[in-house]
Order: sequence, then structure tokens, then C-alpha cells
Amino acid sequence: MKLATLKQGGRDGTLVVVSRDLTRCRAVPAIARTLQAALDDWAGTEPQLRQTYEALNSGAIEGEPFDQAACHSPLPRAFQWADGSAYINHVELVRKARNAEVPQSFYSDPLMYQGGSDGFVGPRDTVVAKPEWGIDFEAEVTVVTGDVAQGATPEEAASAIRLIMLVNDVSLRNLIPNELAKGFGFFQSKPASAFSPVAVTPDELGDAWKDAKVHLPLMVHLNGKLFGKPNAGMDMTFSFGQLVAHVAKTRTLCAGSIIGSGTVSNKQDSLWGSTVDNGGVGYCCLAEVRTYETIEQGKPATPFMDHGDVVRIEMFDAGGQSIFGTIENTVDTASAR
Amino acid sequence: MKLATLKQGGRDGTLVVVSRDLTRCRAVPAIARTLQAALDDWAGTEPQLRQTYEALNSGAIEGEPFDQAACHSPLPRAFQWADGSAYINHVELVRKARNAEVPQSFYSDPLMYQGGSDGFVGPRDTVVAKPEWGIDFEAEVTVVTGDVAQGATPEEAASAIRLIMLVNDVSLRNLIPNELAKGFGFFQSKPASAFSPVAVTPDELGDAWKDAKVHLPLMVHLNGKLFGKPNAGMDMTFSFGQLVAHVAKTRTLCAGSIIGSGTVSNKQDSLWGSTVDNGGVGYCCLAEVRTYETIEQGKPATPFMDHGDVVRIEMFDAGGQSIFGTIENTVDTASAR
Repeated sequence: MKLATLKQGGRDGTLVVVSRDLTRCRAVPAIARTLQAALDDWAGTEPQLRQTYEALNSGAIEGEPFDQAACHSPLPRAFQWADGSAYINHVELVRKARNAEVPQSFYSDPLMYQGGSDGFVGPRDTVVAKPEWGIDFEAEVTVVTGDVAQGATPEEAASAIRLIMLVNDVSLRNLIPNELAKGFGFFQSKPASAFSPVAVTPDELGDAWKDAKVHLPLMVHLNGKLFGKPNAGMDMTFSFGQLVAHVAKTRTLCAGSIIGSGTVSNKQDSLWGSTVDNGGVGYCCLAEVRTYETIEQGKPATPFMDHGDVVRIEMFDAGGQSIFGTIENTVDTASAR
Repeated sequence: MKLATLKQGGRDGTLVVVSRDLTRCRAVPAIARTLQAALDDWAGTEPQLRQTYEALNSGAIEGEPFDQAACHSPLPRAFQWADGSAYINHVELVRKARNAEVPQSFYSDPLMYQGGSDGFVGPRDTVVAKPEWGIDFEAEVTVVTGDVAQGATPEEAASAIRLIMLVNDVSLRNLIPNELAKGFGFFQSKPASAFSPVAVTPDELGDAWKDAKVHLPLMVHLNGKLFGKPNAGMDMTFSFGQLVAHVAKTRTLCAGSIIGSGTVSNKQDSLWGSTVDNGGVGYCCLAEVRTYETIEQGKPATPFMDHGDVVRIEMFDAGGQSIFGTIENTVDTASAR
């Protein structure tokens, strides 16, 4: 099943069921007005939403044309957004550039940060930031959970996964060093994220959803040029079940919580991988290619994003169909205050 | 104006207007069913809520008896909960115990962490945790904002403050060192917080609300014995205007965002203050008294909380009236999984 949220209808938008091919949609006010409302009562709403979905796919319901540009993030605001760093290659790469070791515990204890969730950027909206902040994207896979009990096992946590989305976890690289040096983690350096227009139930991925991981390439274009295509199922040290269980160790998790994978990153038979131009699968953030350049050439060559730069993030099924629709964020430095 | 949320009525509870003396209340479904809904349209709802408040206080409306034990946190779940560390004495004290300096930047750049907000503990509910996690309370003052624009000045941010609450920012001290060593800030070590039964508008504090600080003693009892009574207006290095502006530097803030002061802590004419027994104003968390004991005696003497321990947090106006009602959390280690 595929769901999206149109911007119209207030702060939390309007929930629509979207056809599998992303061409048509149908609002479902009699079932749930918003995605959060649907998730709050998933046992009651999910069967009805699925009926609408099947009717849309079969043509029994015509629906309306689906316009990704009219969408907000599926949850325009959420109660929880926690992001992991499950692709340790990303951590290894960054540390390699500064000759630091990766602590052994990082391979058994997930690295996660608490993100802010009170407002997200729309999938096709601008990212407003100052160029001196070092504007970067991070392409990731995320899940949306139902209620999760405190102390849930990874298996219990995995069974509470309701939806899957993509995200552009916007990162302000030049604000990170000072902020992390203060010891309390990210804050200003992790502004609002942008999620894919469409959220899908795990069954929608078929065999590509296995062991609570998404086994498909994540496609990233920068200004129209392919920048990365790593497989999100490879080199993911922690499954989404493990990530959700980590979050729930000392607290319950509310339905509608979003948990992210961290920047997708493949080892590519070496520690630091390679760019698409060099025959590799490339990267899902500028920081990695800049680190690669630092290792190879002594200093970064690729600049961070500036006014007008566009990042595109999407994922296709085996038949070439876009699963989640397309995130396409343009940077706007002129409006930053 | 005083507002609270009864547990009945779903995940976000039922908004009630509470009389100034906390004896009576009135649900206001025709104005707003939940506090978040009221904050989402504050310009529209606030005048109507005030009418109900005045009518309750004057006796024109009788209302129903107000039972603090029936309350959830005013926002049972929120879209944003960010906590500062505005009382640098707390930081100085902790660092003094390990002979570390406080960086000069800490006096001009607020230290804040991104908290989790998908579910809070009720004001009279139990804190479920394992004793080996090192269960501590932190008594703080918090504000709830309206919408705040990215890049807002401290003055603009202060003018967006809608409500004030108290909080028990539960902290799991023994999980903190390993978590902070990983570099991404708190996560498992900061489980769900518990807020005061009642949220009040700033005007309710009269002269005690000045320069976006609350100039009243914060009263903390541990197992019925006075543990702390520091003045929340003293030694607060950053005002709530500055804290909110810090949060909004790189992102907009959504109505209903909760911003905390950090553990209230007074210098008491010395670097590390003193306990109530020693004639001081005491502390707002066990970590501080343990640090004081470490400085004075070489090691901590006061244990962290265990099963059945009770922390009580409240604040009184000049006339002795409880402003926010009472947070009273009992620790339950038996239910922790």
C-alpha cells in the first residue's frame, strides 16, 4: 500500500491513498484525515486503507491525478525522528580521513542521534540555509513505526514497522565540529529533513524487504548528474529492527515514530569506495566524496551545495517503477536569515 | 491563564481550562479539543480560552473539580522538546569534580540537546527504569512556543512564548558516559520526561516573569524531604528568548515546541553551592549533590533513585499558591524490561 500527504488541509495536510504506479490518488476522510491519525489507530484504519488501495489499482475507483509536487512529507511534522548511522562504512571513511580508529563497540552498539521533528521540508521544497554553514544532503532509508514497548527485542521492533520512506537528512557540515565538540550532539547542524512524497508498507517491496533491510539501490542525482547508487541492503551493519529496538531500550515509542538508517554507504571492496565517474557506486552525501578526495588528493575538491543546487533522491523496483516518488530539493541561500 | 490536559479522550487527552487556584476546570471542546490544537491556532483560540478562564475564576462558570492526578502532561506528546543547560553553575560543578575547565564559549553559546518528544510521562505517573541505569531527576522550567521563524532574534523568540511549565527531565546517569563518548549526544540516557499538571501563560506569573526568566524558587522534595529550592531567575546565563533563538537558528519552530532551561542551579556564593541541610538552597538533581560530595569527601554518598523513591517538583507564587500543580513521580524498577 502507498500513502501520501497533500499540503492542503492544515498543518498535518490531507492523507491520500496512492496507486501503485503513482498516477492516481484518493483522499480518505472517512477513514483518516491525516497519516498520524491513521497510524494512531492502524489496526482499525489499515484494512480500510488497503481496500481503497486495491480499488485504485484495479480501476474500481478512478481517484484524482496524483501530483508529487503537491505533497508534503508524509508526516509534515512527527512526534519522533531518530536517525541511525547503520552503514559503518560511512563512519570508517570519515575516520580514515583523520587517521582515527573506529571503536569496536560501534559494530555492536548502534550510533544514533535524536533529530528534531516539529516540521519537515516538503519533498519538492527548497532547503533554506546559508552557504557558509556547509550545506550537504544525506540520502537514507527510514521506517515509520507503530507503538513499540520499552525493551522490545529487535524482532518485536521489526514487527512494529508500518511504513518505509526515503529521506534527505539535510546536514550543515561546517556547524558540526563546534557543535559535537560541545558534547551534546547535533542541533543547529541538523535542520529540517525532507521525506519522499510517498510512504509504502513493507509488503510493497516484495523480496527486496528482507531481514528488516531494503535491498535496492538508492539513486542520488546532484544537479542532474548521477552521484550515487549504493544498495541500501548491503553493508547495513544494523537492521531496522535493531535500530528501533535501540531507540526503545529505555522508553516506549509512539505510533508514527520515524527511524532512519543513516547515510547509505557501500564498501565497494575497499575501505573508502569510489565515485560513479571512477566506476564505483558513488556516495549518498557530499561529505563522503570530500573525504574520499581528502584521502586520495590531500584535500576536498567537491564543494558543498550553493544557491540553486538540486539534489534528487529516489528508488526503483525491479521493473523500473519509482517506489516512493522523488525527493527533489533545491538550495535557497538567498532567503536564509 | 492556566491550562491542563486530562488523560481521557485519546492519545492527546482532553484540554481543560483550570481555575487560578487549581480547584476547578472546564473542558472546552467547542474551542479546542487538545492543547496542541489550541496552540496551532492560538490567535483564534486564546481569546476564547481566556473568557472561559475569567468565568471560572469569577464563579460565572462552576466547572468540575480539578484533579491533578487525572492529568497527563499538558502536551502528552509533542513535536519538539529541546532542553538547554542555561544554569552554567551545573556545568561548572560537574567539571570541577573532574578538574576540567568550562570552555569560554559556554558563556555565550547555549549548550542544548535535542530531546525525544513522542511520549511523556504523566505528572503523577511512575518512571519505569532499571536501577543499574542510575536513575536521576532534573527539575527545570520550560516554555511552550508558538511558531518561530528561522533566524528569529532572542526578542522575537521571547515574544513567541505562549506557556510555561515545570518538568522532571528524567536522566539515566550511568548510561550517559558511554553515550556521550560515542559523540552524538544523549539518547537512551534521556528517557521520557514528566511535565507539571498545569501550563500557564507568562502573564500569570506577574512580576516574577521578567527578561524571559522565571524569578521564583523551584521546590524539589525527595521522599518527602526538601532537597532543593534554588531561584530559577538567578544564575540563568541564557534567557528563554536566547534559548528559543538558539533552537531556531537553522530551522523554523512549530507551535507547541517545548524548550527547557536545564537543571536549575544557583551558585550560592561559591562554585559548588551547598545542600539544604548545610544551609544552602540545595540542588535540582542527584548528580549535583553527588558531585558536591565528591568534591568535599572524595566520593558520592547519595545514591541514585531506586524502586519506590518519589521526587516532587513544584513552584509557589508570593501568596503561597501552587502555580503549576505538583509533579510527583515514583520510580518503578520492577516493571522495567
